[in-house]
Amino acid sequence: MNLVTADDIDAAARRIAGVAVRTPLLPCPWADPDRPLWLKPENLQPIGAFKVRGAYNAIAALPDDLRERGVVAYSSGNHAQAVAYAAKAFGVRAWIVVPEDTPTVKVEATRSHGAEVLLSKVGEREKLAAEVQERTGASLIPPFDHPDVIAGQGTVGLEIAADLRADLVLVPVSGGGLISGTAAAIKAASPGTQVWAVEPELAGDTAESLAAGELRRWSVADRNRTIADGLRSQPSELTFAHLRAFVDGIVTVSEDEIRDAVRTLARRARLVAEPSGAVATAAYLHHAAELPAGVTVAVVSGGNMDDALAKDLLG
Amino acid sequence: MNLVTADDIDAAARRIAGVAVRTPLLPCPWADPDRPLWLKPENLQPIGAFKVRGAYNAIAALPDDLRERGVVAYSSGNHAQAVAYAAKAFGVRAWIVVPEDTPTVKVEATRSHGAEVLLSKVGEREKLAAEVQERTGASLIPPFDHPDVIAGQGTVGLEIAADLRADLVLVPVSGGGLISGTAAAIKAASPGTQVWAVEPELAGDTAESLAAGELRRWSVADRNRTIADGLRSQPSELTFAHLRAFVDGIVTVSEDEIRDAVRTLARRARLVAEPSGAVATAAYLHHAAELPAGVTVAVVSGGNMDDALAKDLLG
Repeated sequence: MNLVTADDIDAAARRIAGVAVRTPLLPCPWADPDRPLWLKPENLQPIGAFKVRGAYNAIAALPDDLRERGVVAYSSGNHAQAVAYAAKAFGVRAWIVVPEDTPTVKVEATRSHGAEVLLSKVGEREKLAAEVQERTGASLIPPFDHPDVIAGQGTVGLEIAADLRADLVLVPVSGGGLISGTAAAIKAASPGTQVWAVEPELAGDTAESLAAGELRRWSVADRNRTIADGLRSQPSELTFAHLRAFVDGIVTVSEDEIRDAVRTLARRARLVAEPSGAVATAAYLHHAAELPAGVTVAVVSGGNMDDALAKDLLG
Repeated sequence: MNLVTADDIDAAARRIAGVAVRTPLLPCPWADPDRPLWLKPENLQPIGAFKVRGAYNAIAALPDDLRERGVVAYSSGNHAQAVAYAAKAFGVRAWIVVPEDTPTVKVEATRSHGAEVLLSKVGEREKLAAEVQERTGASLIPPFDHPDVIAGQGTVGLEIAADLRADLVLVPVSGGGLISGTAAAIKAASPGTQVWAVEPELAGDTAESLAAGELRRWSVADRNRTIADGLRSQPSELTFAHLRAFVDGIVTVSEDEIRDAVRTLARRARLVAEPSGAVATAAYLHHAAELPAGVTVAVVSGGNMDDALAKDLLG
């Protein structure tokens, strides 16, 4: 299986310049001085999550004639807004298929970027997306299972390696697009840096899969137990191959640890992180004994929450 | 009176590189598309406010033999932490004089950067700081009334002008160090960009002073009415001269508008801003009719709040 290369990620960095924010690393004087902590605040991207990097790179990599026909995606979360935002930046149409029970606030956020939102019944989203593709010639932009998406997310790692020689980089894992690209970039630029994945205990399929050396599937019902609603997907064969090639370890974090990390990021680092975006910080705060020592980077991957959850976690 | 020059600010930028975070401009897709908004998130500096730029530049500009004797400042707010943090970066001692009724959490934050905290009775802070200076040979680092402090804060404007050709830059004003330096930098790099000051109505001495063409003093009791506790100082002759030379206009914002801006920054821009840090955004959101049109930058100057206020504003 072909893995994403440093050249692919360099090309992505050139494409996304001026669209994705070139986020800085933020030093944390409040952290353990023996393990200096830096945050990579991807919640500050225009749609509130790193996803805009991969979506924009994938759309940019389409042949011009295909891109002009527009793009389609199915997601109710950050990927939906990322594809809508990136399509708008190119001036092409976007169709986003979302479950019919998606909260109105998320539908409106996606529409606000100019996308056409299609509501699907349970189990019919692939069918609806395929119909859009057939009718319009639009290209499907998957959330993680695509080399151009992985290369786009990998620009997170490229930027970290350019800014700091870290001993350890902590990255959330769900479908694995972010950590696949980030780890590929960091291992190419700084082979001595360890890259560790972090996932919720309650959606710990990747930890089990890495231990087993093969993909282990958890039920949707099991994965949906975690508050970290952006981390309920599972790696594909492609992202799992990247994980096995480039990732040095994995830790799982509890729901209480995730909540504590959301609060700590707000109060100490002045960042609003969603639970999924806070898991790497949770690992730093609560799992030091399991992690390599030294200069640490935690990727804060996103900051989108509905008002009720924000009130609960930040209030 | 000599005003800070573009060269002074360029020199400051070279000094602070690697200590202050080079903050990006954050685009706001949720803002009015006819007045695109970008945020300059200075709340992400290591001590949670822009103040580290001026404090570090002022300490860096000291002759080596003086700097080695340490520095002293009086402040209970962001300037205290900025001086403590900057002194630690140089490995020199810092004495911080704070009012004896300063909340423990602020005292501890200052101590955590290695500073020695001295509690002063009301009206005795200058005397206490002078005693420290006499005893130790430490240099006083003022919060705003000093060319090196102004030049350091001016790097905010230098970075804005390097990143974007804006029509309008909105900057909070209190003692005026931030807006003096920022406006000097922007007018040098981009004379067509308007720079406007923003202050709370309840501490509106600067608006009155600019209208009168001379400094008008408000009582401490009056200025202390605003929730924006970082904006209760008044310009000095030096900063007022910069304001008259470089600032195009001023708007005042209400307490409700400030609270709304804090909430909007948290929910839409994923930034925790303190009330003082949110006034420029409040002006953008609530005073469009008074402001020049076009591409707008709002400086989010700080993000330090005690837990009770954060709970009230973010919950």
